[in-house]
Amino acid sequence: MKILIVGGVAGGASAAARARRLSETAEIILFERGPDVSFANCGLPYYVGGEIVDRGKLLVTTPVRLRQRFGLDVRVRTSVEAIDRQGKRVRARDLTTGREYEETYDKLILSPGAAPVRPPIPGRELAGVCTLRNLADVDGIKACVDGGTRRAVVVGAGFIGLEIVENLVRRGVDTTLVELRDQVLPQLDGEMSRPLLDTLVQHGVRVRLGESARELMPAAEGIAVHLTSGDRLTAELVVLAVGVRPDNRLAVEAGLEIGSGGGIRVNRSLQTSDPDIYAVGDAIEVPHVVTGQRLQIPLAGPANRQGRLAADHIFGRHVGYRGTQGTAIVRVFERTAAMTGATEAMLGCDGRAWRKVYIHPGHHAGYYPGAEPLTLKLLFDPETGRILGAQAVGGSGVDKRIDILAVAIQAGMTVYDLEEMELAYSPQFGSAKDPINMLGFVASGLLRGDHPQVDWETVMATAAASRPLLLDVRTAAEFAGGSVPGAVSIPLDELRDRVDELPPGRTLAVFCQVGQRGYVATRILSQRGFPACNLAGGYKTYRLFYPEA
Amino acid sequence: MKILIVGGVAGGASAAARARRLSETAEIILFERGPDVSFANCGLPYYVGGEIVDRGKLLVTTPVRLRQRFGLDVRVRTSVEAIDRQGKRVRARDLTTGREYEETYDKLILSPGAAPVRPPIPGRELAGVCTLRNLADVDGIKACVDGGTRRAVVVGAGFIGLEIVENLVRRGVDTTLVELRDQVLPQLDGEMSRPLLDTLVQHGVRVRLGESARELMPAAEGIAVHLTSGDRLTAELVVLAVGVRPDNRLAVEAGLEIGSGGGIRVNRSLQTSDPDIYAVGDAIEVPHVVTGQRLQIPLAGPANRQGRLAADHIFGRHVGYRGTQGTAIVRVFERTAAMTGATEAMLGCDGRAWRKVYIHPGHHAGYYPGAEPLTLKLLFDPETGRILGAQAVGGSGVDKRIDILAVAIQAGMTVYDLEEMELAYSPQFGSAKDPINMLGFVASGLLRGDHPQVDWETVMATAAASRPLLLDVRTAAEFAGGSVPGAVSIPLDELRDRVDELPPGRTLAVFCQVGQRGYVATRILSQRGFPACNLAGGYKTYRLFYPEA
Repeated sequence: MKILIVGGVAGGASAAARARRLSETAEIILFERGPDVSFANCGLPYYVGGEIVDRGKLLVTTPVRLRQRFGLDVRVRTSVEAIDRQGKRVRARDLTTGREYEETYDKLILSPGAAPVRPPIPGRELAGVCTLRNLADVDGIKACVDGGTRRAVVVGAGFIGLEIVENLVRRGVDTTLVELRDQVLPQLDGEMSRPLLDTLVQHGVRVRLGESARELMPAAEGIAVHLTSGDRLTAELVVLAVGVRPDNRLAVEAGLEIGSGGGIRVNRSLQTSDPDIYAVGDAIEVPHVVTGQRLQIPLAGPANRQGRLAADHIFGRHVGYRGTQGTAIVRVFERTAAMTGATEAMLGCDGRAWRKVYIHPGHHAGYYPGAEPLTLKLLFDPETGRILGAQAVGGSGVDKRIDILAVAIQAGMTVYDLEEMELAYSPQFGSAKDPINMLGFVASGLLRGDHPQVDWETVMATAAASRPLLLDVRTAAEFAGGSVPGAVSIPLDELRDRVDELPPGRTLAVFCQVGQRGYVATRILSQRGFPACNLAGGYKTYRLFYPEA
Repeated sequence: MKILIVGGVAGGASAAARARRLSETAEIILFERGPDVSFANCGLPYYVGGEIVDRGKLLVTTPVRLRQRFGLDVRVRTSVEAIDRQGKRVRARDLTTGREYEETYDKLILSPGAAPVRPPIPGRELAGVCTLRNLADVDGIKACVDGGTRRAVVVGAGFIGLEIVENLVRRGVDTTLVELRDQVLPQLDGEMSRPLLDTLVQHGVRVRLGESARELMPAAEGIAVHLTSGDRLTAELVVLAVGVRPDNRLAVEAGLEIGSGGGIRVNRSLQTSDPDIYAVGDAIEVPHVVTGQRLQIPLAGPANRQGRLAADHIFGRHVGYRGTQGTAIVRVFERTAAMTGATEAMLGCDGRAWRKVYIHPGHHAGYYPGAEPLTLKLLFDPETGRILGAQAVGGSGVDKRIDILAVAIQAGMTVYDLEEMELAYSPQFGSAKDPINMLGFVASGLLRGDHPQVDWETVMATAAASRPLLLDVRTAAEFAGGSVPGAVSIPLDELRDRVDELPPGRTLAVFCQVGQRGYVATRILSQRGFPACNLAGGYKTYRLFYPEA
């Protein structure tokens, strides 16, 4: 068995090591265009920022190690130029010497990854304009910062954009973040991204939403960045982080089937349209676990998993890649945001029905010092209660809750299962009723009809005349500190005695700070015959949607 | 509907609030013997230690709040003395005035909790000898420490014992921990408790394992604690934390069915043998989710859940308590230990077959600074791969991994599902192959036969003559730094070239530091015809079993 692997990072390196463990006799050649294999992609921004001091740490393994330990034939600085599917061979080019040669295969695994999109704006080739993909890129950015760069513009507020912004700020660089969409981290639903925006602003980042770079020009101060609004920024460093595109050239030229988004199409065994050619990692299209849509979802964990499975299949094992659910996390200064499964935007595209709840608990018991606020959003099927997606933003404990919900999605669990979860509780780590349980209580209450809920967007989009009466059940002091325009105040603890003040027959939309008192109020009111529902997630959620109100 | 609830902490308070949310018209009376309802049981030790400064924080809610918000009739300092099941009434006693009176019920919920065992040793009534259950107890301990107590003896190294030890040390008290068993935290399998013992010793705690207090006597220095070994300790404060016993007196006297361990017997709807009487919380017997054994498992989360379900059932809802899986966690200084599901000890008692794996990863990617070591142990069914239990010890990230595995147990997942889990990865929070995935890889490899493994205890219990050859595949430097007596050294990266040095036909038990290189070595050797297996969890696991070797 002779296996060729194109691409030596995550998916390719995993496939190679797994293939060797399954067969000591296979001939395995790993081609990598760059100088490094299996480097720590997700660590690159932190080398710029200085949290990772030793560049060597970014090299998860080396060609020498792969040769020694796994008996792999590793060929770095070697590009695979073409695939001859009939002849089952590839043409490789040694980028150091320029020598070209052919190599035959029994099985070929493509793991070329995805390349940063370089938007077609004039000036993108200027010195000081860069993208971030590999160690050479990060060396370039770090050299700029070490060399005294004072101002930077980062275009694109996705995961990589946010990470590089944080690290530039950490180095004292005055940084502007430009994002075409009207929110940072467009992978999240908009309201959930709001706390990240606040954090960026608090750390002095100038954030320009709904804007894009139109042209880059040389300027006395470095580079002039002309925005679509007509504004002009100047900086010595411009990082373009507007997304990645599957590196599909080889596959396209070989006539392999390609998805509409440019990802290489594979079956559940990771085979392309040519059964002797596999493809893994950021270059492929994967089925989304929740929606079934075929998407490119560039993530390290799935890439590694796919590499492993491709090797398994080559050696005759029955494998099925279950799809990707898009579990992802990013730290932005002291805030963390994470997600798993589908967002509202994705479900909307998919024409699928959903309901949602929000909660705003502390990450551990409130009586123990240090509880950090956490906002959790859960999306679920209105009929079955099956969990469709979750998003979280906060400090500590975000990763844990999203991981738990990721497992719940994998297991096909429902909101009723969340009620039952028995999680580790001592006051440093959680609450007797963990935020996960609370999500279950709120969502189950909604589905069972115990807890009628309405979304803020729905109520606020209703014309004032036909809008339900907004009833604020927080304390008088909380109400005085700011409420929703038009809301009436009756504190929860006075509600039983003051129900007569409410107009009979009119629908009541009740809210408190986070939803819990609103729920109790809703129970009190509905048992007294008022058509009442609770505003999902309370005033805190309102402020996520209407931060300037 | 008139509902009486006996006991106003976790389960009772949850039942009362839930009942009110379900019915605004029910009459609900909550009896509590002590002065407080719903206090933060699990926070008590941290008030002694000073992390929780404000005593008021320990009061999760107050009788006044429960009256105002939930319209509950809360009667503190009131003991329920007897139940008249025929008459459906109880006799209550106001502990302040001594007045006794009767109260009828439609439904009665018992939530009396569990009381600390006071072992029948002479002197246990001396001043300075105490247990820890409620605010009065903690006030007493805190007063001692504030008053200048310099030395303490804590008897019992379970969860509460360890927490009180940590907090006494934090206050500068010279503390001795006495435990009858040969390990601390006997709820864990022994080897997993070893790092906790090391931590206690590092913090200056004198730990006396395999010992018990035989007698307590007044002494010039305070109290003399005579141990079973004959040794004598002196201290001003002795905390007895040897476990809890269901507070079943009322239930016993009312002729309700009681389990063999003293817990009140209930069905899945939390009804006792009298269908109008429910029981919840630490006083009941619950089915263990994994083994089905009926046990007392005193935990706050399950108690709250049971209270809620009892109220649901009273109001005609179909509910079924799924059992308790024993998810628990404790922080001991900078170390954390946690568990969920069954231990080896429990599976052994249950006559059930299992296999196990150990891993020792960092809690996040190694290339990012601050990764803390983590030891994970997974127990699973040897036929189906179903997860039976998990234990973890380390620093950060212990809670997350145990919670994920708790959900996996709830969902009936297998080790193969762990391979597939897609968890949130950025270098601050995990690894592209998370420790959970690694557990899945190792355990699945074992079951699929790719990764033959043997347990250290098995090998070490084998007479030297018939023992497999112990092959240490770590580097020469690691071998020189300490290995297993009798082990032969061939570093992994030299193994392919040196296989001829190995005796043909003899079984090889391979090990490295944590198991990963040992696995690769096992693959190399078995493909060359050597009967080889990997020693589970490597040398690090060996040292957990044989720390002094």
